[in-house]
Amino acid sequence: MTPADMEREVIDICRKAVAASRELAAVDGKTRSACLNLMADCLEGGSTAIIEANARDVSAAVASGMSAAMVDRLTLNEARISGMASGLRSVAAQTDPVGRVLEKRVRPNGLEIVKISVPFGVIGMIYESRPNVTSDASGICIKAGNAVVLRGGSEAFESNKCIVSILDRAAVDSGLPAGVVQMLPWTDRAAVAVMLKQDRYIDLVIPRGGEGLIRMVTSTATMPVLKHYKGVCHLFVDHSCDIGMAVKVIVNAKCSRPGVRNALETLLIHRVIAPRFVPELMKAMREAGVEMRGDDEFRSFAPDAVPAVESDWSAEYLDLVLAARVVPDVRAAVDHINTYGSRHSDGILGDDEADIAYFQSRVDSSTVYANASTRFTDGGEFGMGAEIGISTDKLHARGPMGADELTSYKYLVRGNGQIR
Amino acid sequence: MTPADMEREVIDICRKAVAASRELAAVDGKTRSACLNLMADCLEGGSTAIIEANARDVSAAVASGMSAAMVDRLTLNEARISGMASGLRSVAAQTDPVGRVLEKRVRPNGLEIVKISVPFGVIGMIYESRPNVTSDASGICIKAGNAVVLRGGSEAFESNKCIVSILDRAAVDSGLPAGVVQMLPWTDRAAVAVMLKQDRYIDLVIPRGGEGLIRMVTSTATMPVLKHYKGVCHLFVDHSCDIGMAVKVIVNAKCSRPGVRNALETLLIHRVIAPRFVPELMKAMREAGVEMRGDDEFRSFAPDAVPAVESDWSAEYLDLVLAARVVPDVRAAVDHINTYGSRHSDGILGDDEADIAYFQSRVDSSTVYANASTRFTDGGEFGMGAEIGISTDKLHARGPMGADELTSYKYLVRGNGQIR
Repeated sequence: MTPADMEREVIDICRKAVAASRELAAVDGKTRSACLNLMADCLEGGSTAIIEANARDVSAAVASGMSAAMVDRLTLNEARISGMASGLRSVAAQTDPVGRVLEKRVRPNGLEIVKISVPFGVIGMIYESRPNVTSDASGICIKAGNAVVLRGGSEAFESNKCIVSILDRAAVDSGLPAGVVQMLPWTDRAAVAVMLKQDRYIDLVIPRGGEGLIRMVTSTATMPVLKHYKGVCHLFVDHSCDIGMAVKVIVNAKCSRPGVRNALETLLIHRVIAPRFVPELMKAMREAGVEMRGDDEFRSFAPDAVPAVESDWSAEYLDLVLAARVVPDVRAAVDHINTYGSRHSDGILGDDEADIAYFQSRVDSSTVYANASTRFTDGGEFGMGAEIGISTDKLHARGPMGADELTSYKYLVRGNGQIR
Repeated sequence: MTPADMEREVIDICRKAVAASRELAAVDGKTRSACLNLMADCLEGGSTAIIEANARDVSAAVASGMSAAMVDRLTLNEARISGMASGLRSVAAQTDPVGRVLEKRVRPNGLEIVKISVPFGVIGMIYESRPNVTSDASGICIKAGNAVVLRGGSEAFESNKCIVSILDRAAVDSGLPAGVVQMLPWTDRAAVAVMLKQDRYIDLVIPRGGEGLIRMVTSTATMPVLKHYKGVCHLFVDHSCDIGMAVKVIVNAKCSRPGVRNALETLLIHRVIAPRFVPELMKAMREAGVEMRGDDEFRSFAPDAVPAVESDWSAEYLDLVLAARVVPDVRAAVDHINTYGSRHSDGILGDDEADIAYFQSRVDSSTVYANASTRFTDGGEFGMGAEIGISTDKLHARGPMGADELTSYKYLVRGNGQIR
């Protein structure tokens, strides 16, 4: 296929998505939810075909020498397909994000102005290996009345093709227009580059994956991008704090799932509590198998911790490693977080209300905790049903993004001949 | 000055803005409003100095052969400075956009999640000749708790420098940190290019001006940009419609201020009403001195209209010119608008409720009118006090943007030791 042919096909896909999105914008919320439920049934009903397609991806991946952990992320089985289905059903059960009246005012001249939530239109999703993102993302996009153009990882190509064909058929069988769920039918990078230039058709692109992917999308895309960068999450142990509670929360934040973005990466400790707190912490961390890297003051209470170097303060370890630093007060803790953090999730552990207020108002992150684990930054835990990602941007959506965050708004103005 | 020196100075300005924004985020709304009122007083008190500085800009502009219309936009006098002051006072009087509780929920595990509006941080404003934007933009940014880095047009450099020094002094005198209002102290393009790469410090850039400026900013900036593109606004005269009302609204939308974005550019007319409507329209347009450009069907009722060509359908004339087309129904009108429009402001004139509903739900524009002039798309008319622009983006803010739209949000999560 020549580059010109590919470009033409990408544009055809985008145009079909725009046409579908215009029809979809007028489809009521009940029909959209029914579509998601039918998609869930059809995924379960089609599990044999999906597992067969997935097996082709998996054997190609194994043959190419992919790591066992990556092969596991790629592999689908009955249980995982049921998980995808129940994800769709939980999104279906959420309140309709479209048509919410966000504001309503009547002006002195009699004009009635209603600000109402509307779908974006067409959303592009660019993601890596896990094929469950194909159904999760499609479900959330359709729930919010958007058409979606998907481009998953090449290693999951056969799985994604099978899943998309099932989702597309279910959409049409639910009375939705054809083309609400489409994927790019090629695995090479050139097609993504073409897709990322179609700002005339695609309203928003969401990349999900490693930092490399996100930087590629951000630098190539001509349409707005909602970014989900890394999570360098902090907890600050304040001067007055229930040490048992703090240790329990830290163990959870660091160890319950170290490979995720909302896991703890750096611990800050108030100088006053350090002598009592650090020995308790070290005991728990040794038991959990966590490698500690500390500054000099931390290491004066924990001689077996590794000396931390400058790069530790901005490291997203995604592993059983924790950086620790002793600070003089809450101000220094906030400065550290705003300097080295990633604006994702950070928390304070303590009972000094003035310090909690200072910390929560000053830390410039999507989610700022007091006395809870950073692991709660998640659409499901926030009660959104599901999430399409955790935005580390400040524009439009910040933190966990559900279907509500995949809407824009418009103003409907009603008059009886007003002029200005 | 070497490029490296300039880059260092730009970065210093940005860092100072970040430091100021962190302090400003903790300043209460009363203090921010008091600051705006003091700024207003100081502008009026400093009007002699401003007018002197402005006179230097004006004589340089006249010497360079600037058009009389442009010189007029550049010129300040007592009345215009009073206008800038009253703009600041009206923003000061608005409800505080910061700290609004947008959502609040308690999860089954007892976690309390509060979604609260917060300032963005640092906003960059890039604009052209009118010096009143300097105070308008500064006022709205500070009202929303943001520091601002300004880069106005080079032809207004002396005026802007004087205004910024007055605003900065008033901010400090109100107890705000130094650096909440700064401007780039150079007039060349190289400094703007450096500024647009400082995504580490500037959270959002807003360009205001012609399409060329906006495209330059969008293609250069590494931080998010809120765009304010052109306005190709439409009115659709439906099959059943009070013809007198329609003509009055059209005259207002086209003629009350033809050079602005929310002025009418294309008129669509239902085939059924065209024979009765077009002659009335032509009479009013002749009286108002408007040049009509029509398709063949329109010209069959208006022989003296100029034949329209394809480029007329996407033209933003900003002048006393109006394109007109006869369409078979509301569907064709909506298709035309979604194809050729600029997603700014469009309206339907008529009394068929089904057509109004179809039009308002399907037209993909920031503001969709029924029976009113498109000229109302304006922050003041919407009751926002003032606006920083009209967004033609769908992400984050759409339509008129006031101080509320210059906030982001964060989640404050409160627990008592919850783990996941």
